[in-house]
Amino acid sequence: MHLVDVTHEVEPQQIVEAALALDAAAGFFPPGTIHVAVVDPGVGTARRGIVVSAGSHLFVGPDNGLFTPVVARGAWSAFELAAPEFRLPEVSRTFHGRDIFAPAAAHLALGVGPSRFGPPVTDPVCLPWVEARAVADGYAGTVIHVDRFGNLVTSISATQVAAVTGDGLAAVKVAGHLLALVGTYADLPPGGAGALVGSRNRLEVVVREGSAANRLRAQRGTPVLLRPRMRWSGTRRLRSRG
Amino acid sequence: MHLVDVTHEVEPQQIVEAALALDAAAGFFPPGTIHVAVVDPGVGTARRGIVVSAGSHLFVGPDNGLFTPVVARGAWSAFELAAPEFRLPEVSRTFHGRDIFAPAAAHLALGVGPSRFGPPVTDPVCLPWVEARAVADGYAGTVIHVDRFGNLVTSISATQVAAVTGDGLAAVKVAGHLLALVGTYADLPPGGAGALVGSRNRLEVVVREGSAANRLRAQRGTPVLLRPRMRWSGTRRLRSRG
Amino acid sequence: MHLVDVTHEVEPQQIVEAALALDAAAGFFPPGTIHVAVVDPGVGTARRGIVVSAGSHLFVGPDNGLFTPVVARGAWSAFELAAPEFRLPEVSRTFHGRDIFAPAAAHLALGVGPSRFGPPVTDPVCLPWVEARAVADGYAGTVIHVDRFGNLVTSISATQVAAVTGDGLAAVKVAGHLLALVGTYADLPPGGAGALVGSRNRLEVVVREGSAANRLRAQRGTPVLLRPRMRWSGTRRLRSRG
Repeated sequence: MHLVDVTHEVEPQQIVEAALALDAAAGFFPPGTIHVAVVDPGVGTARRGIVVSAGSHLFVGPDNGLFTPVVARGAWSAFELAAPEFRLPEVSRTFHGRDIFAPAAAHLALGVGPSRFGPPVTDPVCLPWVEARAVADGYAGTVIHVDRFGNLVTSISATQVAAVTGDGLAAVKVAGHLLALVGTYADLPPGGAGALVGSRNRLEVVVREGSAANRLRAQRGTPVLLRPRMRWSGTRRLRSRG
Repeated sequence: MHLVDVTHEVEPQQIVEAALALDAAAGFFPPGTIHVAVVDPGVGTARRGIVVSAGSHLFVGPDNGLFTPVVARGAWSAFELAAPEFRLPEVSRTFHGRDIFAPAAAHLALGVGPSRFGPPVTDPVCLPWVEARAVADGYAGTVIHVDRFGNLVTSISATQVAAVTGDGLAAVKVAGHLLALVGTYADLPPGGAGALVGSRNRLEVVVREGSAANRLRAQRGTPVLLRPRMRWSGTRRLRSRG
Repeated sequence: MHLVDVTHEVEPQQIVEAALALDAAAGFFPPGTIHVAVVDPGVGTARRGIVVSAGSHLFVGPDNGLFTPVVARGAWSAFELAAPEFRLPEVSRTFHGRDIFAPAAAHLALGVGPSRFGPPVTDPVCLPWVEARAVADGYAGTVIHVDRFGNLVTSISATQVAAVTGDGLAAVKVAGHLLALVGTYADLPPGGAGALVGSRNRLEVVVREGSAANRLRAQRGTPVLLRPRMRWSGTRRLRSRG
């Protein structure tokens, strides 16, 4: 058995960020993987703990929306983590990661079936998933995550980007800046800002060898608009330097 | 054999913080575990390196008080890490974690007995352990650690909290704020401050979905006073918002 | 097979820092180790991916100078990571660590020989390696890395330090401060600044139980001058406190 620490760098309380991180990583693990995810602002309340079985993987954690992307793909089953015999003898009201979720994962790894943990859960909490919406000739989304490089990950998907760029160049407006869509970091001059489809298969706003968050003064929640380049007013030139 | 990185986030030089982290984690590891702990401001001086054997676990590191909680439980034996054959061929004066402690752990993992490393140590360094003291009708302690969420971990133990709350509600005074003792984060309104027994079995001062350290301007060393709620002057209402 | 995360704390884009970290760690791993190193500002451009075989270890990553210290030791061979069958089916232009380097390492671990990945590489990119230069009676170098303790790691090697101190004491000038060369942290008073040969076998400027970077206001690139102590003007006393 291998234990892999995917990340301890999700911001406290940020369930969406954790759901994105889990979703980005899970697909690269082999069948039989048990994922434990704990961002748990509701610990100690009536919120349930669950195990979700989907696509030969198991997911263990609080039922607070962390598993929204897993559930959104369909073909899942889930059970409440209710059976006391698979918890630590003493369960605190402040740290179920230690007292309930990790012990559940350990028992699953030893072969205990998910259905033995408790009653089926047919209505796991799903986040109102952040999706960009179609506008006149493009997509309007928001920054949903700022990574450790300062890249702005947006709610606009690679598929939506492809729909806009199908027949030409595109540009992005964010925090008052109009930025060209490029293919990779190196298409920008050092220090230059632009947008690209990043490794999470989402539109990201980036600064080559720098922090887009700092340079553009953008943050989680900042609106982002993607349109074909020809649709932007011609009075303002694209800038890649600040 | 499994290698587990417990944490690399102890503040530099903070032996008490490291001792708390080790103490909180060690009990969840199986018999035969070898713990290597290195917070070592005295590296290169005459301070000894030691291996402590206690409760089917082995602890390896500098003899500077890191193992105070282990030793405080009794039933231990310790030996100095003196034998050159279990060190790297060249030992620096600045990084014994690499040159002495990790190699010692590796040899222990291969079955070398602790007593083969050097002479018995009967007087390991023990920190003047931070304990809250009983006052008129409660306990006076201090903040001993600020965790990455901004929670203020105090020297007041869960047992001491139980002694105060046995017959009613309690409240905590810290940095000029009077805060209610609650059961878990969710008993507070979002952004609200309070105190609770945290996952380290200590009284912690917290802000729901926020940082108590920032909100209350408290830090390591800030005094904390716990008393039954009825004993606080009635002229000042409990506030959970700043 | 064991997976070991050496560090995720190299500053973004800092190839020299990553090369130093890799060089410091690699020698402590056993024969057959496969090292994956990814600091990759040129991802998505024509820069090659390579596997370098040297001294019973394999090194996988971008051909951007990360492996300069490995190559500098001689007796190596290298191959381009060109064969599509050892990559993920879909290769992004922004994250070759995931799409090319990790899959290459996995195939190497399964026994695929390095030469099967692509054509030989005889001219891997090598950084103009940062080396201190000899001056009248000492060495002039720079700060090449600030570690998480605030220690200033310099380009002056242990060998160069030995050459200067062979016949007496030495001192270091950095950011306007003249500091004594000492043997270890504990030779300084608490809070005192000095220089020593650190665990990376390089001259480091340190503050005991503090941050030299903060105290001396130095950073990557700050010049450092090492000379015998007798050669410094006698009009200015060595200070170890600020």
